[in-house]
Amino acid sequence: MEIREALEELELLQKKLYAYRCADSSLFLDSVTVAPRNTAEGRGVALGILAGERQKLAAGKETGELLAFLREHLEELGELEKRQVEVLWRDYQRLEKVPAEEYMEYAMLTNEASDVWHRAKETDDFELFRPVLERLVAFNRKFAGYYNPSEKPYNVLLDEFERGADMEYLDHFFTVIKERLVPLIHKIQEAQQIDDGFLHRHYPVEAQRRFSDYLMEVMGLDRGHCTIGETEHPFTLDFNNKDVRITTNYKEDSVAESMYSVIHEGGHAKYELGVRDDLQYTCLAGGVSMGVHESQSRFYENVIGRSRAFVEAIFPKMQEFFPEQLSDVTAEQMYRAVNRVEPSLIRTEADELTYSLHVMIRYEIEKQLIDGSLEAKDVPQVWNRLYKEYLGIDVPDDRRGCLQDSHWSGGSFGYFPSYALGSAYGAQMLLNMEREIDVWGPVSRGDLSAVSAWLKEKIHQYGCMMEPGEIVKNACGIFEPTVYTDYLTKKYTELYGL
Amino acid sequence: MEIREALEELELLQKKLYAYRCADSSLFLDSVTVAPRNTAEGRGVALGILAGERQKLAAGKETGELLAFLREHLEELGELEKRQVEVLWRDYQRLEKVPAEEYMEYAMLTNEASDVWHRAKETDDFELFRPVLERLVAFNRKFAGYYNPSEKPYNVLLDEFERGADMEYLDHFFTVIKERLVPLIHKIQEAQQIDDGFLHRHYPVEAQRRFSDYLMEVMGLDRGHCTIGETEHPFTLDFNNKDVRITTNYKEDSVAESMYSVIHEGGHAKYELGVRDDLQYTCLAGGVSMGVHESQSRFYENVIGRSRAFVEAIFPKMQEFFPEQLSDVTAEQMYRAVNRVEPSLIRTEADELTYSLHVMIRYEIEKQLIDGSLEAKDVPQVWNRLYKEYLGIDVPDDRRGCLQDSHWSGGSFGYFPSYALGSAYGAQMLLNMEREIDVWGPVSRGDLSAVSAWLKEKIHQYGCMMEPGEIVKNACGIFEPTVYTDYLTKKYTELYGL
Repeated sequence: MEIREALEELELLQKKLYAYRCADSSLFLDSVTVAPRNTAEGRGVALGILAGERQKLAAGKETGELLAFLREHLEELGELEKRQVEVLWRDYQRLEKVPAEEYMEYAMLTNEASDVWHRAKETDDFELFRPVLERLVAFNRKFAGYYNPSEKPYNVLLDEFERGADMEYLDHFFTVIKERLVPLIHKIQEAQQIDDGFLHRHYPVEAQRRFSDYLMEVMGLDRGHCTIGETEHPFTLDFNNKDVRITTNYKEDSVAESMYSVIHEGGHAKYELGVRDDLQYTCLAGGVSMGVHESQSRFYENVIGRSRAFVEAIFPKMQEFFPEQLSDVTAEQMYRAVNRVEPSLIRTEADELTYSLHVMIRYEIEKQLIDGSLEAKDVPQVWNRLYKEYLGIDVPDDRRGCLQDSHWSGGSFGYFPSYALGSAYGAQMLLNMEREIDVWGPVSRGDLSAVSAWLKEKIHQYGCMMEPGEIVKNACGIFEPTVYTDYLTKKYTELYGL
Repeated sequence: MEIREALEELELLQKKLYAYRCADSSLFLDSVTVAPRNTAEGRGVALGILAGERQKLAAGKETGELLAFLREHLEELGELEKRQVEVLWRDYQRLEKVPAEEYMEYAMLTNEASDVWHRAKETDDFELFRPVLERLVAFNRKFAGYYNPSEKPYNVLLDEFERGADMEYLDHFFTVIKERLVPLIHKIQEAQQIDDGFLHRHYPVEAQRRFSDYLMEVMGLDRGHCTIGETEHPFTLDFNNKDVRITTNYKEDSVAESMYSVIHEGGHAKYELGVRDDLQYTCLAGGVSMGVHESQSRFYENVIGRSRAFVEAIFPKMQEFFPEQLSDVTAEQMYRAVNRVEPSLIRTEADELTYSLHVMIRYEIEKQLIDGSLEAKDVPQVWNRLYKEYLGIDVPDDRRGCLQDSHWSGGSFGYFPSYALGSAYGAQMLLNMEREIDVWGPVSRGDLSAVSAWLKEKIHQYGCMMEPGEIVKNACGIFEPTVYTDYLTKKYTELYGL
């Protein structure tokens, strides 16, 4: 094989992987938006076949030979090509180690698990889900052993979602979180509560839709490359850096929910839209990790979107969209209302301050499930004990307890910590950003362009050119969890007059 | 290879082809509904790769060997498997004959042509489109030579869209059409014209949407398996017999347009939804040909939908949807209005009677383009002459003349005749249907179930199990174009009191 020929093959391989991903995304998007209700079966057949083809491509013999050849000629490759080979080789090795029949069996299990989980959640029946959870845990332990037999299984799984993050890193992180935030939350629970009743007046969907358009404009999201749709659960889907979709969900009795969904998903979209053109259609396109992605979405949502400067900047416009609902409300009242702290049962509805504790509880449970010190059957009991201990609340049922999230049923163990890490990275990005540019002057005028430019320069543009840890270092310097807890402590001490 | 193993491979091959088609359909559907405007490039990369993969699969060496093996063991196969091998082998042979580089070049050309055609139509500039049209014609002549060098090129192309239909068949058909319908149209032009002014009052989109829901209910379209969307040009898209989508386009100043789009596309959907379960995910799923498909859509739209019995049946309900607009209108006036004959410039807006003449003009031009007796540069002149001769109207510009349809820019030559054939098949199906069941009693009560059951039994269920000609024979007996012209002559003689 000649090097030129091999590089052409490398390009084609990546374009094929991109095409399969597009097909998958498109079928998924369709399924959660316009597809008729009773069409899952036929779509499942197509998705199964496409997944198999993609798997064969990424882990096939030809790909292995191509990558092995290129690894012998690394010095002849450009920087981007070298990095592509590195990333593809890592995927190849990982996939290649799992026996095909176990991979198939696992794919069928997660398919089934999703169904079972839905039913278990609906009927509040953990016992229905338990045997499936046991099998999922067993598979994940086994796969971790295939991927890296010399490392602790949970570390291997964590590495899948946030390369470089291991239990040592996360134990330190969550210890700081626990020590600094649990007492703060308890103090707030004893303080005067904030009134957010006006957020729950009647906000018609049509007006909320126009408000979403305005928010996307404020965020500088080009509608020629990013649309907004409506789904039960908001999400961001990227095809490439010129084609990103976000969705939201409107509740007429809760204006802040969609508002912050739009800003959150808009943050994910900014990341994807900011990736360099020359990484497109390669394995280096797209955000580098869950944690870094969440750092962007939660940065826009909380650090910027729930700041006093931002709320004050957009509030007059918000009153135009909702004149009746907000005529007797001030910007300061709005700022306080969207930052109301209230320990609650559901992670996705948690406020900025208590959010990390929801994640920490899942982290502690996953760690024990995967190292075998906790059995699936005991998950509800541990879950409920930890919610009481950290958040001070009683969990009334498993539906609103350990059955609330879809992650485990999808086979994802080690995913949750990324949510909290992302939040923490964001606080540290703010610190660095403030040193380099005027953040709050423009934001207080509703101008996010300087903030977005900084994030694009430090993070977005690189896609997967660097490892998550390098990206974080590039934007944050050395990661120090106390920066995050200091940020929260300062914000909420002021808010609650502690 | 063992026969059992080969049959498993045959099943997998077809599932893969199905999956690629789903991917393609999903990306297409997205592109014409919710995708952001400026996203064609990235989608084009994905679609190109997927088309290449599908082409490699259908025409690859492994597929050839598999099919060759199965052809040697036909006596060991079931009926369905035999037919699958026959259909796949025909595709394989056809695709295999085109050199890969020419196939790629042609794919790029049609991509480009679509763009050029859009611009040429917008700016009314045939000269812009002419060189592309020349290349498209040249490619099609060449491909026809590859497919079947011993047959006239246009016959080969016709065979692609409607197997069994050749110039002899169509010349006879269109001669009957011309001889019988052109004089009838001229007579109608001299008669008292029908007033359809009330169709163009203001019909709000919201009310039209509810009316569409009602029409789908009347047609017995299960919304759990068939949704309706909105696109610039209405179409039907099928994933499988449990998942079909139709679209329409609402114009507030023209209630009949969307009404008959819904019934037309609903007819296509009925066909796809009626195919047998055991043909799904094989090459035998889906409608058998363009002509037979159009016979179904145009049957529901015109034969049923524009019948006096149907219009009278649904009119009271229609008045409920549009009380202000239709309070002074009778069912008979509505029947007459939706059957108003008016020779016009645009094929897709033509009435039932003049429609076939639009198609005939395109047939005559295509025939000459492909046999070389007409040069691309002379198309506008011939087009305009024929519109004058058959329809009695002057074509003011190419935008509303020979640049109006997208078919040629997509590389489709030989496609148009199917539209007229479909209409003619429909009339003959009605004749047979009337001999076997009570058609008009139930229809006059708004009950289409007997009609739909007959069509499902004679046509829909078979998918591609039979050739188009066999399906037509099954539903029509021997095809005789005068049945169609008699049907039209009777209907319009009565309507216009000739």
